[in-house]
Amino acid sequence: MAEGGERVLVDFRTEPARYRHWKLSVDGRVATLAMDVEEAGGLQPGYELKLNSYDLGVDVELYDAVQRLRFEHPEVGAVIVASGKERVFCAGANIRMLSRSTHGWKVNFCKFTNETRNALEEATAESRQRYLCAVNGPCAGGGYELALATDWIVMADDGNTTVSLPEVPLLAVLPGTGGLTRLVDKRRVRRDRADFFCTLEEGIKGARAVEWGLVDEVVPRSKLADVVKGRAAEFAARTDRPAGTAGVSLAPLERTIDGDRVRYRHVVCDIARDQGLAEITVSGPDAPPPTDAAGIRAAGCAFWPLAVARELDDLILHLRTNEEAIGLWVVKTSGRAELVDAYDRVLATHRDDWLVREVRLYLKRTFKRIEVSSRSVFALIEPGSCFTGTLLELALAADRSYMLDGTRPDDERPAASIRLTEMNFGAYPMVNGLSRLASRFLAEPGRVDKLRARIGDDLDAAAAGEAGLVTFTPDDIDWEDEVRIALEARASFSADALTGMEASIRFGGPETLESKIFGRLSAWQNWIFQRPNAVGPKGALEVYGTGQRSEFDRRRV
Amino acid sequence: MAEGGERVLVDFRTEPARYRHWKLSVDGRVATLAMDVEEAGGLQPGYELKLNSYDLGVDVELYDAVQRLRFEHPEVGAVIVASGKERVFCAGANIRMLSRSTHGWKVNFCKFTNETRNALEEATAESRQRYLCAVNGPCAGGGYELALATDWIVMADDGNTTVSLPEVPLLAVLPGTGGLTRLVDKRRVRRDRADFFCTLEEGIKGARAVEWGLVDEVVPRSKLADVVKGRAAEFAARTDRPAGTAGVSLAPLERTIDGDRVRYRHVVCDIARDQGLAEITVSGPDAPPPTDAAGIRAAGCAFWPLAVARELDDLILHLRTNEEAIGLWVVKTSGRAELVDAYDRVLATHRDDWLVREVRLYLKRTFKRIEVSSRSVFALIEPGSCFTGTLLELALAADRSYMLDGTRPDDERPAASIRLTEMNFGAYPMVNGLSRLASRFLAEPGRVDKLRARIGDDLDAAAAGEAGLVTFTPDDIDWEDEVRIALEARASFSADALTGMEASIRFGGPETLESKIFGRLSAWQNWIFQRPNAVGPKGALEVYGTGQRSEFDRRRV
Repeated sequence: MAEGGERVLVDFRTEPARYRHWKLSVDGRVATLAMDVEEAGGLQPGYELKLNSYDLGVDVELYDAVQRLRFEHPEVGAVIVASGKERVFCAGANIRMLSRSTHGWKVNFCKFTNETRNALEEATAESRQRYLCAVNGPCAGGGYELALATDWIVMADDGNTTVSLPEVPLLAVLPGTGGLTRLVDKRRVRRDRADFFCTLEEGIKGARAVEWGLVDEVVPRSKLADVVKGRAAEFAARTDRPAGTAGVSLAPLERTIDGDRVRYRHVVCDIARDQGLAEITVSGPDAPPPTDAAGIRAAGCAFWPLAVARELDDLILHLRTNEEAIGLWVVKTSGRAELVDAYDRVLATHRDDWLVREVRLYLKRTFKRIEVSSRSVFALIEPGSCFTGTLLELALAADRSYMLDGTRPDDERPAASIRLTEMNFGAYPMVNGLSRLASRFLAEPGRVDKLRARIGDDLDAAAAGEAGLVTFTPDDIDWEDEVRIALEARASFSADALTGMEASIRFGGPETLESKIFGRLSAWQNWIFQRPNAVGPKGALEVYGTGQRSEFDRRRV
Repeated sequence: MAEGGERVLVDFRTEPARYRHWKLSVDGRVATLAMDVEEAGGLQPGYELKLNSYDLGVDVELYDAVQRLRFEHPEVGAVIVASGKERVFCAGANIRMLSRSTHGWKVNFCKFTNETRNALEEATAESRQRYLCAVNGPCAGGGYELALATDWIVMADDGNTTVSLPEVPLLAVLPGTGGLTRLVDKRRVRRDRADFFCTLEEGIKGARAVEWGLVDEVVPRSKLADVVKGRAAEFAARTDRPAGTAGVSLAPLERTIDGDRVRYRHVVCDIARDQGLAEITVSGPDAPPPTDAAGIRAAGCAFWPLAVARELDDLILHLRTNEEAIGLWVVKTSGRAELVDAYDRVLATHRDDWLVREVRLYLKRTFKRIEVSSRSVFALIEPGSCFTGTLLELALAADRSYMLDGTRPDDERPAASIRLTEMNFGAYPMVNGLSRLASRFLAEPGRVDKLRARIGDDLDAAAAGEAGLVTFTPDDIDWEDEVRIALEARASFSADALTGMEASIRFGGPETLESKIFGRLSAWQNWIFQRPNAVGPKGALEVYGTGQRSEFDRRRV
């Protein structure tokens, strides 16, 4: 929420017919996403989105478009990101918006935009929908970071067109959407050149931009559109996506918010404000899955795993953005293990089907979104639950899990069990590139292989504890106190200390572009977003555009 | 400097005879470093170092001891870190000291303590001086982080002895000295267990500490000393360090500070306060090197590479701690390439000699210290310089380099050249584990191999630019303006934005425990060190020990 502004409930649900800032068009195997930001279309009052600068609302549409291209357009093998304006590509995140935002809003905004850019890269690599970018005018800051997230950047060679990351010299903040990391780790620009480039307000153009690896090619302005179309056709020809198939339409997501309850078809969330927690319950399927690809397609967005992904995704974004004071997410499940297992077998068997691939990738992104959220996550595993396979990932993504050992006197349901499926062994890698099981057992990699032999077994609390899959297994006598104390303690800790702690503990092992962006770049940016040199009364972000000069504390920290 | 305190010039030079907090003893192949902190021995007034809690002064002695063990005790193959007090191991960093420190002091303190703990690990792995730890009582926070930096932790099994990281629940900050990273990445503690452990004020003891991987063994209190001695003897027996050789004594380092000039034997630093920069000039050797190991030993701490390492190391620490407002280090060299080259050949030829190994490792650590410093570094390569091999690393460590192309009209010296030696190809890895050349050419790894063929060549500006070894090569006509503008621009930028930018750009490629500690953990800690929940008037760090309760903003960011 913006400083001093009214509470605005941000809704992440949209559809192309309602876009104000993007035009999505499809021509055979090539789609074009044209950015044409409506100046008066800011999510909140108080700033104008000039020169294709953007705020969260613009990015919500981009996110929606990227999702729809994957599901609704199986035929599309390449996506051109372009500007809908004649003389500017994109000026980056709107600075007035940033300067009037709270610290929390800035951080959350950057997180979402980062996730969306990562999704562009994942679409290129995994969905075989390759993104490329046509730069037709100034491409600055977040504008260039958007270009960097695509796989091929073509730039017009004219006096007006440059790429730049002017945040450091102009605003005393970092390029906050992965730019620094992508420069040196994706495009592998030499570090001294990256240093120079990032201190250059005016940016770099023409042949030097190609020589330094900042873009892939420069072409005369008059040929830009044709060259990009040619490249897109070339990339699209190499996709494995099916040409003659209808897509799955993503129907409007039904959600009701009733007081402190948020309800979807399969997901329900109850917020306990006094405890600072949200209890999230995911229901398993209530019927067996379709048995073939045609059946899956016929189910469309009602296909249970897809529906759950969409609902969870929306809920996470809602809680993150609109429920900042709810620091602990308590995850439960409800349903029958054998039905989840049956769905998982479908997801495993049909993994080469384009639609199943998209569903798996969507689930992967959704679980990753949980782990990069600045919220504590506990899983409670009780009778009636179905932490099986795909849904077991929720418990593995949690900071810790409590599993009731045995039954409750007033409950006739059998004791809880958990079940591994094929889907726990690589389908849903974390941002560090490892499966949650591999991350969990860094100390004993062989254990993951041994667990394969347990696929399909119902593991009770003793077996699950023994296998290292749950954290604690109190019995009915201890449960209430142990869990209550854990929840209360979590709520009593500093929100910030928990965020830093969780970010440091959750991702052991290898690093990736993504983990570097969320773990390192974002942490530095968050620090800078607190520093007087950026956000103090004379900080650069505050005085930008006022004609005043910023005044810096020169001390290096 | 502490808030409101007088300006205290911190001196990092010390020696065992002057230690107030540590006792260093050597018994055959095993040394013992016993921590026995003098309560009234704080570096600054206003706090008491109770329960073996520490401040920067305590760590300066530890750092000195670790250095001396390497150089002065070739015979030592294992080092026991123990407490000199009967009933406590170490309570961690002193909280009163932290709460009254400026943000900059906190951050700099953590950086130095981190470097020292990394040095313990490097001594274990590379110097074959294996560190182990005897825990004889509460071992909390920074105390446990010190233990984690050793290679084997033995803990007494009694009611009084626990290991803990109580920072999050108690102080609303992170364990700031690598603890979180070492838990999950070095000891590979399961992330859910790590989560629980880090929220537990009282810590964990006994069998559970072993089962969870927090320590390596627990033994009855009465047997602790014997077991540790036994382990140490066992580890020491496996070292390759020579038993019958005298060490090299590290004589007091001579330094004069005269106004804005800091002068050592081979290194001189001129501070230009109005420009916010320090010009650091390193002189090459003035005579050929000793030709054999005996000669090197005879030269002792006057051996040019060792002397340069010591002087540079001290200067970096001095500038970091005592000259916070000097944000840009401009590095120059002066001398003859062929003499540096001759020394490098000695360092390469005698790499298996224990002393040469230590000298190489010390240079490695010193160059790493430059890159994790929150200072911009530019190298200026001009006539009369000797950026050769080991000294070329300074230019490769710089954020950018300017090399004068050709000569100056008023200068009879020949044009500058640079020269690669064997020492540029792996002797001095960065914190990411790669050589500076490999880091520089991430995009074209083959280039490093090709550069091997150029070892020994004098590369003029054109050739150095072509080879990608320098950033810019202005000629005499452009030099003055180009360099002046670059220096002025750097001084005009926000100190914090530069710090975040440099931390993000300097270390492309792979990640290591060290790069995670400096790049990720430290960034989160710095952020938290700015947050009201930690340092505001009701923040946990402020109210600790006052009997007041902290009040937290519950909003998650």
